[in-house]
Amino acid sequence: MKSKIIETSISLFGQRGFKETSIQDIVDQLGLTKGTFYYYFKNKEEVLVQIHERFIDDLLEQQNHIMESTLTEKEKMHELVTMMIRNIRTSVNSAMIFFREMRHLNEEKLSYVRKKRDLFQKNIEKLVQNGIDREEFRKDLRADMISYFILGMANWSYFWYEPGGEVSEGQLADIYTALLLQGLEKKG
Amino acid sequence: MKSKIIETSISLFGQRGFKETSIQDIVDQLGLTKGTFYYYFKNKEEVLVQIHERFIDDLLEQQNHIMESTLTEKEKMHELVTMMIRNIRTSVNSAMIFFREMRHLNEEKLSYVRKKRDLFQKNIEKLVQNGIDREEFRKDLRADMISYFILGMANWSYFWYEPGGEVSEGQLADIYTALLLQGLEKKG
Repeated sequence: MKSKIIETSISLFGQRGFKETSIQDIVDQLGLTKGTFYYYFKNKEEVLVQIHERFIDDLLEQQNHIMESTLTEKEKMHELVTMMIRNIRTSVNSAMIFFREMRHLNEEKLSYVRKKRDLFQKNIEKLVQNGIDREEFRKDLRADMISYFILGMANWSYFWYEPGGEVSEGQLADIYTALLLQGLEKKG
Repeated sequence: MKSKIIETSISLFGQRGFKETSIQDIVDQLGLTKGTFYYYFKNKEEVLVQIHERFIDDLLEQQNHIMESTLTEKEKMHELVTMMIRNIRTSVNSAMIFFREMRHLNEEKLSYVRKKRDLFQKNIEKLVQNGIDREEFRKDLRADMISYFILGMANWSYFWYEPGGEVSEGQLADIYTALLLQGLEKKG
């Protein structure tokens, strides 16, 4: 039941917004009473916290799996971009909530979620730096700035890309990675 | 006075959110009465509409200026990325409102603003296609997908980049354009 409440909240917060969704809206959708909601959660904010934590924990786990593999840095980059784009199909509403509603978390939770979000960025920076150190990428790159470049191009696809359309997730990831890797490679 | 009300609303909507800001908050900040507000605007939504229109009209005007110049396509790309990043300093709150609060516009206004937003994307697509046709860029690029790649990497910087820090706007634009152009170029 707890995870059903979270799933329904993800879809309502994602479509209408956190402020615009009441606990009544959530329980109505599930045919529950408010009592059941309060058995599992103190308030609406607690659901929001868990949505944020699940979203970023899941991404970090998938990212770790790639980082710890024995692939080359170029291959890891391809896997990472593919993973981020594939997640749109399953997590577009969670992502919208993550990008848009973080300011509704309290200070303590906000700082916790931000740390994990920053870790996701730092891992990409490390991947770029490893690629430079192993001479797969150019020497003159700024790994920190490039990590935001990669986050931007991949995260932005949550706002416009429709899975199941003319271009598949795999194709989009291939197009993006090809452009990115040629940009990162040593010339000549 | 009208433009002061808009400026104050941009800062309040941007920091707190549209739903979270009342007309009372706006007039309090300016030391006005609600009567003055209603002399210029029917309601809070009308301010939101004008913020959206000003933001996208201004971007389109700057983009047009670049598109119609006599620069090469590569140079235009550099100018475009620089322009988008330079706008962070003056328009970060407007951009946050544009990315986050569009769903609070009514159907008619939403469709009007979306058309202009789509035009901004189509112009980038055209720039990439011109670069392909003039053999400045590789033949095998999909101009439509690449336009979203560019929008993503530039727009994402509104979420993390702090003007006035260690990396200047010009430097960030140069780093991003160098990576992008090497990715778009013909090899060899």
